[in-house]
Amino acid sequence: MPNPTAAMLVIGDEILSGRTRDANMHYLAGELARVGIDLEEVRVVSDKSARIIDALTALRGAYDHVFTSGGIGPTHDDITADAVAAAFDVGIDVREDARAILAAHYQRTGLELNAARLRMARIPDGATLIDNPVSSAPGFTLGNVHVMAGVPAVFQAMVASVLPGLQGGAALYSQTLCVQRGEGEIAGVLSDLAKAHPDVGIGSYPFQRDGAFAVNVVVRAADKSAVDAVMVALCASFPDAVA
Amino acid sequence: MPNPTAAMLVIGDEILSGRTRDANMHYLAGELARVGIDLEEVRVVSDKSARIIDALTALRGAYDHVFTSGGIGPTHDDITADAVAAAFDVGIDVREDARAILAAHYQRTGLELNAARLRMARIPDGATLIDNPVSSAPGFTLGNVHVMAGVPAVFQAMVASVLPGLQGGAALYSQTLCVQRGEGEIAGVLSDLAKAHPDVGIGSYPFQRDGAFAVNVVVRAADKSAVDAVMVALCASFPDAVA
Repeated sequence: MPNPTAAMLVIGDEILSGRTRDANMHYLAGELARVGIDLEEVRVVSDKSARIIDALTALRGAYDHVFTSGGIGPTHDDITADAVAAAFDVGIDVREDARAILAAHYQRTGLELNAARLRMARIPDGATLIDNPVSSAPGFTLGNVHVMAGVPAVFQAMVASVLPGLQGGAALYSQTLCVQRGEGEIAGVLSDLAKAHPDVGIGSYPFQRDGAFAVNVVVRAADKSAVDAVMVALCASFPDAVA
Repeated sequence: MPNPTAAMLVIGDEILSGRTRDANMHYLAGELARVGIDLEEVRVVSDKSARIIDALTALRGAYDHVFTSGGIGPTHDDITADAVAAAFDVGIDVREDARAILAAHYQRTGLELNAARLRMARIPDGATLIDNPVSSAPGFTLGNVHVMAGVPAVFQAMVASVLPGLQGGAALYSQTLCVQRGEGEIAGVLSDLAKAHPDVGIGSYPFQRDGAFAVNVVVRAADKSAVDAVMVALCASFPDAVA
C-alpha cells in the first residue's frame, strides 16, 4: 500500500517579503518522513483570503493531508481560520471549549481575555481542536486540513499533538554516499543504477565545499536490502567515496 | 502602477523529504523585494515531470515572472529543462552556444565534456541563456519563466545575471517596531491603525525570546510618509517599544 500523501500550506507575507526565513517547512518535512507520510508539495501564499482559499481547495483535493502554518493569532492579519471555514463552506464562531482553554490560560497568566484574544477561540464548525501546550490557543483539524500556528515553537508542539493520531506508512530507509567528484562525472553510473533498480530512489545532490564540487548521492526505498544493493554497487564504482 | 508580480517554483525531492533545508527561497525573496518585484507565491514540488509541468502552467499564467530553482544538472533526476519545454510545448535539444560554453569550461578545467555533462546544453527552443559565472552550465529564460540551478552559490549568481534585465517597481519602504508584549495585547491598536491607513501594510509577527512573547510590527508602503505616520502612532501607543 502506498504511503499517505501530504501537502503543506505556509501562510505569511513575512516569508514572501524576505523578512523571515521559514523554519516550519523543514521541520514538518522531517517529522512526516519519520512517520511515513509523503510530503509531496509545499505552497507559500500571502495573507490574502482568496489566495489561502484557492490553495486549500487545490491541496485538500489532491493529497490525503494538508498542514497549514501561520495566521491563527489574535491580530487583524490573522485570517487563516476564516479562510479555512470559507474553503469548506462552513460557519465559524467562538466555540465554548476553545474559549474555556483560553480563559483558563489567561487566568493563570493574569492577563485579560480581551476581544482580540477571544478571536483565537473562533473555530470553524465541525473542527476538532489541536492541543497547544506552549501558548494554549488551539489549532484545529477540519476534514483533512490541520491548521497550526506559525511561531516555530508552537507549530512544533501542534505537530506533536497531531501526528500520533494519523495513520502513517512505511518510513523510507535511506543511505547517503558523499562522492568528491563533479556530478557530471558520476551521472552515467547513477543513471544506469536508476534504470536497473526502478523501485529505489537515487537522488544526486551537488554542493560546493572549499571551492570544489561534490555530490551527496541519496538512496531511498522502503526495502532495506534494495537500498543496500545499490549502495554496494555505488561503493564499487566510487571507492574513494564516504558513506 | 502596481509592481510586477512573481512566483517561485522550487524543484527538489531533497527539500520535501526533509533532507535539505531550502536556502534559495529566502534569498530570492530578499532580492525581489529590493528591486520592487512582488513575490506572491512559492511552490515546492518533487522531481516528477507532471508535477513540474502542472505547477509551471498555473504559475506562469498567474504571475508576471516565474523563477525556478533546481533540476538542471547532468544527472538522471535533472528533468527541469525537459519539463519546461513540455509546459511550453516546444522542442528541446543540445544548443550550439550552450555546448560552446560547456566545452570552453571543461577545456579550462581539464575535464571531459561527456554525455552526462552535455545534457546541460539541452535548451528549450526559443529560450535565452542565463549566465552562470560560477560553474558555467547556463540557466535559461523562456517566456516569463527563469530557470536556474539549485546549488545556492549558482542560484545566487544566476539571479544576479537575470534581475538587471527585468523591469522592477517601487521597492517598499518598511519600518519595524519590536513590542515586548503578547500579540493579544496590541491587536486592538493594530487593527484600528490598519483600518485608518488602508494603503499601509501592517504585519504582526510574534516570536518568543527567553520564554516571553514579543511582536515585531512591520509597517510597509511605497510612500515613506505614510509609513512614518503609522510608526509615530505606534510609538505613541507603545512607548516602551524598540524601533
